[in-house]
Amino acid sequence: MTANQLFEHIKQKKSFLCVGLDSDIEKIPSHLLSAENPIFEFNKAIIDATADLCVAYKPNIAFYERLGVKGWEALAQTVIYLRNRYPTQFLIADAKRGDIGNTAQMYAKTFFHQYDFDAVTVAPYMGEDSVAPFLSDVQKWAIVLALTSNPGSKDFQMIRDASGHFLFEHVLERAKQWGTTDQMMFVVGATQAEFFSVVRQHVPSHFLLVPGVGAQGGDLRRIAEAGFNEQCGLLVNSSRQILYASSHHDFSQAARREAQQIQLEMEQLLEEHHFIEKR
Amino acid sequence: MTANQLFEHIKQKKSFLCVGLDSDIEKIPSHLLSAENPIFEFNKAIIDATADLCVAYKPNIAFYERLGVKGWEALAQTVIYLRNRYPTQFLIADAKRGDIGNTAQMYAKTFFHQYDFDAVTVAPYMGEDSVAPFLSDVQKWAIVLALTSNPGSKDFQMIRDASGHFLFEHVLERAKQWGTTDQMMFVVGATQAEFFSVVRQHVPSHFLLVPGVGAQGGDLRRIAEAGFNEQCGLLVNSSRQILYASSHHDFSQAARREAQQIQLEMEQLLEEHHFIEKR
Repeated sequence: MTANQLFEHIKQKKSFLCVGLDSDIEKIPSHLLSAENPIFEFNKAIIDATADLCVAYKPNIAFYERLGVKGWEALAQTVIYLRNRYPTQFLIADAKRGDIGNTAQMYAKTFFHQYDFDAVTVAPYMGEDSVAPFLSDVQKWAIVLALTSNPGSKDFQMIRDASGHFLFEHVLERAKQWGTTDQMMFVVGATQAEFFSVVRQHVPSHFLLVPGVGAQGGDLRRIAEAGFNEQCGLLVNSSRQILYASSHHDFSQAARREAQQIQLEMEQLLEEHHFIEKR
Repeated sequence: MTANQLFEHIKQKKSFLCVGLDSDIEKIPSHLLSAENPIFEFNKAIIDATADLCVAYKPNIAFYERLGVKGWEALAQTVIYLRNRYPTQFLIADAKRGDIGNTAQMYAKTFFHQYDFDAVTVAPYMGEDSVAPFLSDVQKWAIVLALTSNPGSKDFQMIRDASGHFLFEHVLERAKQWGTTDQMMFVVGATQAEFFSVVRQHVPSHFLLVPGVGAQGGDLRRIAEAGFNEQCGLLVNSSRQILYASSHHDFSQAARREAQQIQLEMEQLLEEHHFIEKR
């Protein structure tokens, strides 16, 4: 998928929502636990309830890896289900991988070819040869961690060089040379709203993947105002707020209500910024 | 396992070798491909041929993940085999994981409890809360990437702050406050020999996990001279040089010869530095 195609989907759906499938066996409704694969049943219900309200899905791999064979099966089934039923969705493996070249290539093969993801999140610490293997197929994306949403983002990402630039600015400057705007996005946490303008100085044209709205406290309007570019340029992720809106039989309807509330706010913002016409 | 126990094993074995089980289905001898699980068969043969010459094994998870269910089965069987037959070996999951707290916890559960690893390699970019979950069990270790062996290590790890300190020095300084020397090691690449003295200024007492000897060109003597501390303090990893010494039926004997050559060089170095008595 190109950046332009993604932008088209955003306009059609009136949404730049990414639903994070951080599907935790200890948090899903208990009545699903008797299903053959509870996590896949849960994902299927969440997807069917939200697919018209979002443009992307992002399973966090940790939650699947945790369950061993069952977890990997659930992940594979989820990707196949999405590809067959909702072929316009952008599929992100939130894996945060990063290793030397020959090993990074293994990870790229896994997520792009064994599973059919469009994108993988990658950690930048090991530099160019750890990211390059995720860019060798022009149809596929690397989403590089720049400024994350968690408290620990201050420990290293905010270290300044002699001219006052933060480490995350170096990451943006270097990494944007490794691939096109059709192959690379950056992770910028919603809790970092005051830094979105700095980020946009470095990468005006790239899509940003923004986690941390909802459970982690980020504010959607502030992020949109500071982060929008001429092609929207934002994918805002929500996971726990949607997935665990209810722990009962109505979990998928409750998830839909949460997703719809976010989508409506996004629609308003897209209208105000003239990406779409007012209804 | 404590640092002291690891040091005892090093003295008994006269070796600080870690064998990297980067077992690649495309590189293992073709006669193994008809086995029920070729990767496990390969690992078993490599382990039996090298266990008296090394103190640690380090499967790189990418190579197992790549194979889906078969790969995870091979990984589980390998850990069980090692635990049963060679209980003094230190087992490292080379996973380079790093994610926000609740997700990092999932990864820690996976590698420490579902699989019974002693240690996991972790990426520092996301800071303290991404590493802390790997330190909550005092018996288990986090091995934090500091200065890696690959060309891309120069991209960010070598960025200097206003007072001239490299990013990797910040990583060492901060991370050493998060856990004891019985819970934390640092990855320092063998190709970075000129920086071992800087590393040792920051972390004189920690074990270092040193990849990059052999295929990547690092020099063992130079690393030992600059990296030894009073408890040896080094685990030097070799993967490809040992695993793929031969692609024929004699692969395990060839692997043993390679491992033995490294072990003998290590024995010499341990003697010279009076960790063990001369024979």
